Amino acid sequence: MNGWKRKEVSTMPEKMIFSKTEYDRRIRHTKEQMDRQGIEVMVVVDPANMNYLTGYDGWSFYVHQGVILSLDSDLPLWFGRQQDANGARLTTWLPDESIFGYPDEYVQSRYTHTMRYVAQLLRDRGLAEKRLGLEMDGYWFSARMYLTLQEELTRATLLDATNLVNWVKIVKSEPEIACMRQASRICKKVMRTAIEAIAPGVWEKDAAAMVSAAQIAGTDGYGGAPPAIFPIMPSAERTTTAHLTYDPDRQYSRGDVVLLELCGARHRYHAPLSRTLFLGDPPDDLLKTAEGVVTGLQKTLDFIGPGVTAEEVEARWRAAIAHTGVVKPSRVGYSYGLNYVPDWGEHTLSLRPGDKTVLEPGMTIHFMPGIWLDSYGFECSEPVLITESGCEKFIEFPQQLFVKH
Amino acid sequence: MNGWKRKEVSTMPEKMIFSKTEYDRRIRHTKEQMDRQGIEVMVVVDPANMNYLTGYDGWSFYVHQGVILSLDSDLPLWFGRQQDANGARLTTWLPDESIFGYPDEYVQSRYTHTMRYVAQLLRDRGLAEKRLGLEMDGYWFSARMYLTLQEELTRATLLDATNLVNWVKIVKSEPEIACMRQASRICKKVMRTAIEAIAPGVWEKDAAAMVSAAQIAGTDGYGGAPPAIFPIMPSAERTTTAHLTYDPDRQYSRGDVVLLELCGARHRYHAPLSRTLFLGDPPDDLLKTAEGVVTGLQKTLDFIGPGVTAEEVEARWRAAIAHTGVVKPSRVGYSYGLNYVPDWGEHTLSLRPGDKTVLEPGMTIHFMPGIWLDSYGFECSEPVLITESGCEKFIEFPQQLFVKH
Repeated sequence: MNGWKRKEVSTMPEKMIFSKTEYDRRIRHTKEQMDRQGIEVMVVVDPANMNYLTGYDGWSFYVHQGVILSLDSDLPLWFGRQQDANGARLTTWLPDESIFGYPDEYVQSRYTHTMRYVAQLLRDRGLAEKRLGLEMDGYWFSARMYLTLQEELTRATLLDATNLVNWVKIVKSEPEIACMRQASRICKKVMRTAIEAIAPGVWEKDAAAMVSAAQIAGTDGYGGAPPAIFPIMPSAERTTTAHLTYDPDRQYSRGDVVLLELCGARHRYHAPLSRTLFLGDPPDDLLKTAEGVVTGLQKTLDFIGPGVTAEEVEARWRAAIAHTGVVKPSRVGYSYGLNYVPDWGEHTLSLRPGDKTVLEPGMTIHFMPGIWLDSYGFECSEPVLITESGCEKFIEFPQQLFVKH
Repeated sequence: MNGWKRKEVSTMPEKMIFSKTEYDRRIRHTKEQMDRQGIEVMVVVDPANMNYLTGYDGWSFYVHQGVILSLDSDLPLWFGRQQDANGARLTTWLPDESIFGYPDEYVQSRYTHTMRYVAQLLRDRGLAEKRLGLEMDGYWFSARMYLTLQEELTRATLLDATNLVNWVKIVKSEPEIACMRQASRICKKVMRTAIEAIAPGVWEKDAAAMVSAAQIAGTDGYGGAPPAIFPIMPSAERTTTAHLTYDPDRQYSRGDVVLLELCGARHRYHAPLSRTLFLGDPPDDLLKTAEGVVTGLQKTLDFIGPGVTAEEVEARWRAAIAHTGVVKPSRVGYSYGLNYVPDWGEHTLSLRPGDKTVLEPGMTIHFMPGIWLDSYGFECSEPVLITESGCEKFIEFPQQLFVKH
């Protein structure tokens, strides 16, 4: 376990998506946040954050893994299952000496725990008595992981650093935005595919299959990445709630509302978009809801820009739809970007009362005023980039209730 | 928040996939395990376990949600985000009075925590001083969730019940096996799609898109479910490690090894299968590895049956391949079934030294002897059902190195 700090990486391996300058920037900004919060060492286990700092990209997050970043070094350590260590060699910019694969007996063991291996790694590096930042409320940091570290590292100070890296990620660099533009082009194609495929008599599963294929096939120029949220495309009564998907054994029929909450992804950077489709002659109240939401959406987009706060955006939206009677009691948007399952949201900024985050250029927000009423739902959303003067839609797609006969 | 235990469910709503008898069985067996471990109340947050007990099925597990099962009642409580409560009404057999949606301000809040809502729910039900079982090492039970419950429920006893429901799930009922047979038929079609699609000159993304589509389109008779693991189909040097997928910007070329670790799923029940494809004339050492692995696989399948232990299966495999020089230092299989991202494995039985689990009829195991060497990998796996007399392959698919020119 020697070699730490020994090998300097001056150029990026050819395989890397981003430049050394870009990874340097990310690490510098993460360390800045660590320093502000008095955190000497971050143990990063969120797969999106691991990717952000090192490039690591594999479907291996079902076992414990992570990246350790210390204020004392510019080289993070990667730890993961031995059989995934070559994956770290292939996808990260880290030198071999920074990659630590643990033996397979740690995997889902009833006798030991991966965090014992990690604690030993920290001891070997002289980091076991430091102030350690942990992603305490993340999907990938279980209660048992925490208790095991606590038991092993009796001289360390364990600190809650939930979303520390996520807050660094909230402002995107130019290369990241370029990636998100590619994802957006894929997303536009995905949404078109869905609207073209869905019609009375078509099996929901077959439309969903075409949507999934479009997400991966991408465009002629480049392929898509697996989406962090599987296509959400409920129909009929299933549109009265969020987060249901296609019915695998049902055909669309005349009179169906179909919600489409879809995305494109490129190198795990996302572009989400929601639209609503009606098969047949839409009822008046749905048309009225659609009109109210679309008008409110446009007024809110005109308002979004640098300097305003997240809660002011929500208030603007609420005022814009007040006269329609439409009520949206949940947040109307959030920051998004580089992510893995189960969420493309970044868990930082939320467009809702109380969120004081001041918008700034480079932030990317999914403005998502979804409405779920007792008999149907309506969604029309926009992913936007905050610019120097306002905001820019990532995707040009008609804002309307789509109707097919 | 009243109504607990008031409404008896005597028949299943039509929408349910399984019968009332089946859900009764699941709850009875879960309570049996709780009782043995001295657990009065289980807080189940794993989405697969929530589905197992109640039928709940939605992509909402990116926020905190769960099912509370008490020894005192046959009716579990569902809690989740308010906007997902209709999803619980639509997909579970629970009466309205057992469904609790929390207000949106709990979502990713920096001021409060969903577990405060859950603690209040437990207090209202008189369960706040009980012995509570928690899925301490699951993806969906973060360190912060645990610490918040500990802070709120000072008179409760918090116990580690990691994988308690998973161990109940390990033996499948006939209706579950029927579902897994459907998933297996989908999987067979998915694997055929992959082998047909991949050829020199084909874009990896396009082959992956066809595989994804096949997973969802299912068969003529029924649709597939979103897979718990995205198609793992690395090529060339990416086969030297586990868990990488297609390269979005690469075309297959002559000389490529392609690993295919794919699945079919039906109502979230999985059927995994791995095969390996070579484009061109395979090198001798790959042919030799393939022959050794396939022979060892067949000898091991002959051995698998009720009464033998998980570690004996691994030992049989090791003995069968000893003469080939092939070494597989990780576990060679695991229990699988009903699951969501990120894993179709059940985290119970592992085929590896030290696992004393005695196989019994109704268990379903993915025997997965994957080999990742320095220059390539080889995988050939079988999902099997333990029967009264041995084991039965879920899928008939040639066990060989596939070769295409």
